[in-house]
Amino acid sequence: MYEHGGDIYRREVRLDFSANLNFLGMPESVRRAAREGAAHADCYPDIRCEALNRAIAAREQVHEKQVLCGNGAPDLIFTLALAERPRRAGVFAPTVHEYTQALEAVGCEIIFCPLRAEEKFRYDRRVLSILTEDVDMLVLCNPNNPTGQTAERALLQEILETCQAQGICLLLDECFIDFLEDPAAHTLVPQLAQYPCLFILKAFTKLYAMAGLRLGYALTADAGRMERLLAAHPPWSVSIPAQQAGLAALGETDYVCRYRALLAEERPWLKIALTDAGMRVFGSQANYVFFEGERGLAAALAEEGILIRDCSNYRGLTEGYYRVAVRSHAENVQLMEAISRIAEKERRA
Amino acid sequence: MYEHGGDIYRREVRLDFSANLNFLGMPESVRRAAREGAAHADCYPDIRCEALNRAIAAREQVHEKQVLCGNGAPDLIFTLALAERPRRAGVFAPTVHEYTQALEAVGCEIIFCPLRAEEKFRYDRRVLSILTEDVDMLVLCNPNNPTGQTAERALLQEILETCQAQGICLLLDECFIDFLEDPAAHTLVPQLAQYPCLFILKAFTKLYAMAGLRLGYALTADAGRMERLLAAHPPWSVSIPAQQAGLAALGETDYVCRYRALLAEERPWLKIALTDAGMRVFGSQANYVFFEGERGLAAALAEEGILIRDCSNYRGLTEGYYRVAVRSHAENVQLMEAISRIAEKERRA
Repeated sequence: MYEHGGDIYRREVRLDFSANLNFLGMPESVRRAAREGAAHADCYPDIRCEALNRAIAAREQVHEKQVLCGNGAPDLIFTLALAERPRRAGVFAPTVHEYTQALEAVGCEIIFCPLRAEEKFRYDRRVLSILTEDVDMLVLCNPNNPTGQTAERALLQEILETCQAQGICLLLDECFIDFLEDPAAHTLVPQLAQYPCLFILKAFTKLYAMAGLRLGYALTADAGRMERLLAAHPPWSVSIPAQQAGLAALGETDYVCRYRALLAEERPWLKIALTDAGMRVFGSQANYVFFEGERGLAAALAEEGILIRDCSNYRGLTEGYYRVAVRSHAENVQLMEAISRIAEKERRA
Repeated sequence: MYEHGGDIYRREVRLDFSANLNFLGMPESVRRAAREGAAHADCYPDIRCEALNRAIAAREQVHEKQVLCGNGAPDLIFTLALAERPRRAGVFAPTVHEYTQALEAVGCEIIFCPLRAEEKFRYDRRVLSILTEDVDMLVLCNPNNPTGQTAERALLQEILETCQAQGICLLLDECFIDFLEDPAAHTLVPQLAQYPCLFILKAFTKLYAMAGLRLGYALTADAGRMERLLAAHPPWSVSIPAQQAGLAALGETDYVCRYRALLAEERPWLKIALTDAGMRVFGSQANYVFFEGERGLAAALAEEGILIRDCSNYRGLTEGYYRVAVRSHAENVQLMEAISRIAEKERRA
């Protein structure tokens, strides 16, 4: 089975840097709402997620009929694949594994667009060449996971226009966009109404540290696509605790501001510390840092009870690539100390 | 959008007979586990559901590698459809709507096998005629929802043998089997290992009144099918509250016994009361009663704040068919009193 981040169930983990979650933990209001939701989960959840859809629509400034909530982002990726059953799709490499998993499950042929280490894994114009009428879907993660690279605005706009012109559905994964310094400069949500080709994916999981509750949402202005999505989506996918927690989360603006401020301090600190420790750091504009280092680093850290994401099983990557979440300063210091100890041991050996 | 039972979100509901849930409500241990799970849902759930799979395997006397947990039964129906992508499948009518929804989503042609009112909607041997090599899947719900009819053991065995011989996957939905007087006489779980064609579906939703948490599981002894299922299943589908609640639920044997005893008293009472009120009652061996009555009954009851399942939107049924959950004696009495009042009003009008 594919190895993911956040797997704290089959080893002793003291510090988990492998899952990109808000290190402040779940806000108290969200925890309370989730607990209340769980305590009153005798009945079916609202099959239409009406209250939550309305709150998300207000937050995103879209119409509530353009919102589809799901059991985490992967549920929505699979539902889109099933709803549209693309014959051929473009997917970057490296990127999130679930795109390929979902597309292959519907028998879709995948054209992989390599992102190259020598170009710092940056998105570039080469992708435009595959956006022909033979392609039904393009998947773009912005900022990309695991690299943390964003697509330049002009390039993104060109991709969007081309997809719209060619009738290509653009699955734009913005699950990590709120971690950027200036999300508004990157998001395409304001262009949703104008570009029905857009299917934008967002999650509550990371920003509100509620990964165990499962909640994500998709936005599209294409009414026909929304109808197909509803037909392809298993009913009652969003539990009562998730719906209640999502509603509470949308009220947590101070918490998000506080986290973003800490992140703005800690991300550069961690990038510099890793670079000083001899790692080759790339992009990393989200709440995680992506780098190349010594082979065996993840295993050595695991022995100290520290989990980082070994990225060698991403298509397009090899051994020696890693992703670490940005955590609190004290925890980031512990990570760097452990890395130093391991390097020291290596030198002596 | 398709109308389901249990929709208490868009009307004033005093008594909900439309969802087939254990009327005792969620056991306290399950509620506590769900609440605890929700409170500690900062991290990702166990992607493999190892502890829960092990507990289910012990309960069902199967191997834990034969268990797949999902986000409610519908999630598993969709996952099976996506994993096997059958070209042609047999589905009874009337039955659960999600089978058709999931099969149509993967472009499967469906052969509907009508269950007839004049035959009391009983399963019969006619289905055997469609079980040829042109068919990839048969879906059978035992006891059937909404009719509450069970398949006779000899017929079920013949269907099973034929499916196995013809290479047809048998999706056997046993979500309501624990409500029968003698589940052991009906379940095919003990035959799982011998018949790899079997895919058995079960849910926690109904028996433990935890519909708002979403939890179901599938059993299959076919290792190749399990691999395809895992590939087609969105990762992290089962939330932490659901996994914790499921584990607690499996320890609730007394609660289940108590409910089954109450059910054994109330089900015949309600069937007789409905018959005495002029309804035509069918099958109904599960925790719900299916009957034909006056058109407009559901709407008239809704005005009194009582929700019953109007079954007119099931394929194979027309207006005038209803399903009511068996609830506590006091609640069942309230239902029958409301039905009397409505009939009285009709007579006077």
